[in-house]
Amino acid sequence: MESDDLRNYLESFTRSDWQESPTDAGPVRFALIGLGWWTVDEAMPAIEDSTFCETTAVVSGSSGKAESVADEHESVEAGLTYEEFHDGVASDTYDAVYVCTPNARHLEFVETATSQGKAILCEKPMEATLERAEAVADACEDADAPAMIAYRMHTEPAVRRARELVRSGAIGDPVSVHGTMSQSIVDWGPDQWRLDSDLVGYGASVSDLGIYPINTSRFVLDRDPVAVQSTMDSTHEYFEDVPDEVAAFTVSYEGGIYAACTASQHSQLESFLRIVGTEGSITIEPAFHMESSLSVSVGEATVDIETPQVNQMEEEFDYFADCVLSGREPYADPQHGLVDMRTLEAIYDAAERGRTVSVDADR
Amino acid sequence: MESDDLRNYLESFTRSDWQESPTDAGPVRFALIGLGWWTVDEAMPAIEDSTFCETTAVVSGSSGKAESVADEHESVEAGLTYEEFHDGVASDTYDAVYVCTPNARHLEFVETATSQGKAILCEKPMEATLERAEAVADACEDADAPAMIAYRMHTEPAVRRARELVRSGAIGDPVSVHGTMSQSIVDWGPDQWRLDSDLVGYGASVSDLGIYPINTSRFVLDRDPVAVQSTMDSTHEYFEDVPDEVAAFTVSYEGGIYAACTASQHSQLESFLRIVGTEGSITIEPAFHMESSLSVSVGEATVDIETPQVNQMEEEFDYFADCVLSGREPYADPQHGLVDMRTLEAIYDAAERGRTVSVDADR
Repeated sequence: MESDDLRNYLESFTRSDWQESPTDAGPVRFALIGLGWWTVDEAMPAIEDSTFCETTAVVSGSSGKAESVADEHESVEAGLTYEEFHDGVASDTYDAVYVCTPNARHLEFVETATSQGKAILCEKPMEATLERAEAVADACEDADAPAMIAYRMHTEPAVRRARELVRSGAIGDPVSVHGTMSQSIVDWGPDQWRLDSDLVGYGASVSDLGIYPINTSRFVLDRDPVAVQSTMDSTHEYFEDVPDEVAAFTVSYEGGIYAACTASQHSQLESFLRIVGTEGSITIEPAFHMESSLSVSVGEATVDIETPQVNQMEEEFDYFADCVLSGREPYADPQHGLVDMRTLEAIYDAAERGRTVSVDADR
Repeated sequence: MESDDLRNYLESFTRSDWQESPTDAGPVRFALIGLGWWTVDEAMPAIEDSTFCETTAVVSGSSGKAESVADEHESVEAGLTYEEFHDGVASDTYDAVYVCTPNARHLEFVETATSQGKAILCEKPMEATLERAEAVADACEDADAPAMIAYRMHTEPAVRRARELVRSGAIGDPVSVHGTMSQSIVDWGPDQWRLDSDLVGYGASVSDLGIYPINTSRFVLDRDPVAVQSTMDSTHEYFEDVPDEVAAFTVSYEGGIYAACTASQHSQLESFLRIVGTEGSITIEPAFHMESSLSVSVGEATVDIETPQVNQMEEEFDYFADCVLSGREPYADPQHGLVDMRTLEAIYDAAERGRTVSVDADR
């Protein structure tokens, strides 16, 4: 009986427990907006392997890029410039959009897509600033089609299982969290939108990377941030326009649980999340760079779980499409994303003011 | 040649690279002051196994306890009450003292011992408050014999090797640190000096546990703290007299390196230290609960090093005795300890004020 339990647990570890639509439903046809490496190298192959999704349009600032990506992918019917997209060219070729432009350009594409009645999958952070993110949420609110902020950790099995363990009391009461996400973008040279405050928003590291431990802690703990503290610094010349080449920040979640976090865009590749409770701990490491492994300690016993790695982008797209097909609201709706935007604004504010800043709905 | 390098590295990993005295030097005869479980169960067996040390006197608030511990240990010539110690009874039976009382009673024993010309090994934190710690430092300053604050991580091989790796540039420039030390003292009931603000000082968790990641980061990075942020909370009834049943704090070290730390006396047992640099990372886990293991990542290569665990108390006592025998100043002299006391005071101050607090020599 006990051995059956373990076998069943491992066998069902990576199940898509969110799926409601039959496997032959769909496809949901996507226009991918912004054709950087993330869209082309990560999103497009994931969509190709997915159950419910198909790429039928690609949209770029460069017409040459749009055309060449369209030519290289059989399913793509339209290669559009940003202007053509806004003008509604070939809008009957797609049902949904994936917005993966620099942060400060999310809003315009969300507004156009909602006016076309398309479903929205918008990358995180939602926009460059809280104010612009609120405009994103307003646009989605007025629309009929579902909208989701692209938190791929929500459909990562290691994270979902961690959430179940916390919920079931496996580690007692959660006490504290350590989380980090770091990488180096210095090898890519100075001309990157993540280093341009007009395009990235508040900063380079917390907005882009720190949001992973912030949001994944929220999801696993099922609690929202209430206050933050932070400190950040930029010394490398590439980072002169943004305050956070490296940052350390503490997020206080509801119920007095503290998450001690770091993030850096000029560091060894690094990612982990550890949730420590009164009776055990959960470690997800690696956590955020497209691979996630779960380890659980209860008392003096530790279990390391190695399962085949799902493609996080494929799961995310299929989850979103499943919501579209079944007519239900995605978990990470724009209001969910706004909580992170308030938290990000508070973190940058706290660093500048050198004090604890509360995260409240009135921010 | 390369294989020889690895073999040599592993063979010399746990070497006592600090040792100057010949093995047959000594012994340094100790009076152990404060006979709690740490002294009896950890320090006494370690001294028995040590190269340079011997326990010749034991000192307790309870004469019964002093006598019974003296009776049970062959080397012990005198079992003294605190009063007898202060009166100089049997002071010719020991050369040095180990002060392991509640924090707020360190000063009186240091003062008596220095007036007797004895060498001092004083547990950390140095005292209950910065002001009293300064009095400890003053007493030691005026004395002839060496004084050391008992940081056992300084002679832990995993920590020394980590320090060498950072110094040699193996992980590039250090960027950030994650550190934690947690345990639960709730099972021991409400009557403990760590829960009594008169005896423990500023608080229960950061002073007693958080000092490990703080000081070990200092040692490994070879940099001192310059500023702190922190947040802390007590909700369990046992912790009503102290502010930090759980705490999260950030220590900014010289050179803009941030350490994100947590500590709790009401948590699953937990301890780790990770130093992330631009080109690699170093993890010590477990770190602080008498066992330490080192793992090093450089680029995509990772090395996990498992060596026989040294007895950290034995190494610490032998290092201190070696300093006494060779007439040199210990690394962790009282001025070293004062930096941590300033840091602790700043951390509790920062939590109360909700702002960044600098750690400077004028505190």
